[in-house]
Amino acid sequence: MQTAHKTDPVSKLIYELSKLPGIGEKTATRLAYFILKQDESYSRNLAEALINAKQKIILCGQCFTFTDTDPCRICENPERDRSSICVVERPSDVFSVEQSGAYKGTYHVLHGILSPLDGIGPDELKLRELISRLGQNSNVREIIVATNPSVEGEATALYISRLIKPFGIKVTKLAHGIPVGGMLEYTDRQTIGKAMENRMELLS
Amino acid sequence: MQTAHKTDPVSKLIYELSKLPGIGEKTATRLAYFILKQDESYSRNLAEALINAKQKIILCGQCFTFTDTDPCRICENPERDRSSICVVERPSDVFSVEQSGAYKGTYHVLHGILSPLDGIGPDELKLRELISRLGQNSNVREIIVATNPSVEGEATALYISRLIKPFGIKVTKLAHGIPVGGMLEYTDRQTIGKAMENRMELLS
Repeated sequence: MQTAHKTDPVSKLIYELSKLPGIGEKTATRLAYFILKQDESYSRNLAEALINAKQKIILCGQCFTFTDTDPCRICENPERDRSSICVVERPSDVFSVEQSGAYKGTYHVLHGILSPLDGIGPDELKLRELISRLGQNSNVREIIVATNPSVEGEATALYISRLIKPFGIKVTKLAHGIPVGGMLEYTDRQTIGKAMENRMELLS
Repeated sequence: MQTAHKTDPVSKLIYELSKLPGIGEKTATRLAYFILKQDESYSRNLAEALINAKQKIILCGQCFTFTDTDPCRICENPERDRSSICVVERPSDVFSVEQSGAYKGTYHVLHGILSPLDGIGPDELKLRELISRLGQNSNVREIIVATNPSVEGEATALYISRLIKPFGIKVTKLAHGIPVGGMLEYTDRQTIGKAMENRMELLS
């Protein structure tokens, strides 16, 4: 980016914004000029939110999601079902599952997936911590492995199910199928295949 | 947005980011989690850039673009051609024309376009200031009106050309045509019509 080395404040703002994922120089420029048009309170609020979020956010000592309280709001909520742990790759996946409103148990964030080519083995993930949770809490009945359906995600799911087998706890994974509102025409072959395999009886 | 009223720092950051144009809650969430994963220096730099840009940026006293020096770097650059003024709607348009590298004159930012329905008349734009510049500098030979090709933009261009007529200065506007790299198939009828009207002789 040519403007990166200029020292004027607008170019600097565009440069910092363009480091965000999916934000190219053109979008960063549009955002910067939008910000300049707003009241000063707008950029101050955003700046404060940035500093606050980064300074106050830690990892939950139990589930390792991002949180500003330890344990996090989910882990300390007495209404959450502690007999179920949903294992996800990243803190943002906790947010996604929460948005669905379909899950009332607890979480465990791995902070990555097994990827031998990238040098990420079991010790790089929060797997030891998961086993330690299972040792401390004998009420866990089910581990739902919600890693993404990539090759590495599936391999990680398989690894976890083998790791947990000695505990005699049920290990499940999320179902594959046609997305809600999705059209068969635009759905890939593998997904249709999985949806066919997992077909369910109507009016059963 | 449901999370807007939550007080935890991540929700607050998502809320502030989602006020940006073209950034919905989903993108804001993705950006927030990206920011949380980076070093603290990243969010601090972005926060500083935001504050600095908004605090240090003023309007140039000559051309009224955003600047941190008055006059702005373009107006004070002795290598810019002062006989030409390119009139644009917004400061970001100065950036766009500069990026093209095709213009070496000076600018004048209107900060809007004529739009009677929105109550924006000539007095709401920096038109008086443009006339005053022409009065002070008798070397101006050409005004290039680079308002956007909307109904209001064209009306503003026409208004400006009438306003400047008494000065005997040439008033031009940007050419319409097929975008570079554009396909006829995806170009709208009006643009093709203008490109046809403005067609140029090959090997002339």
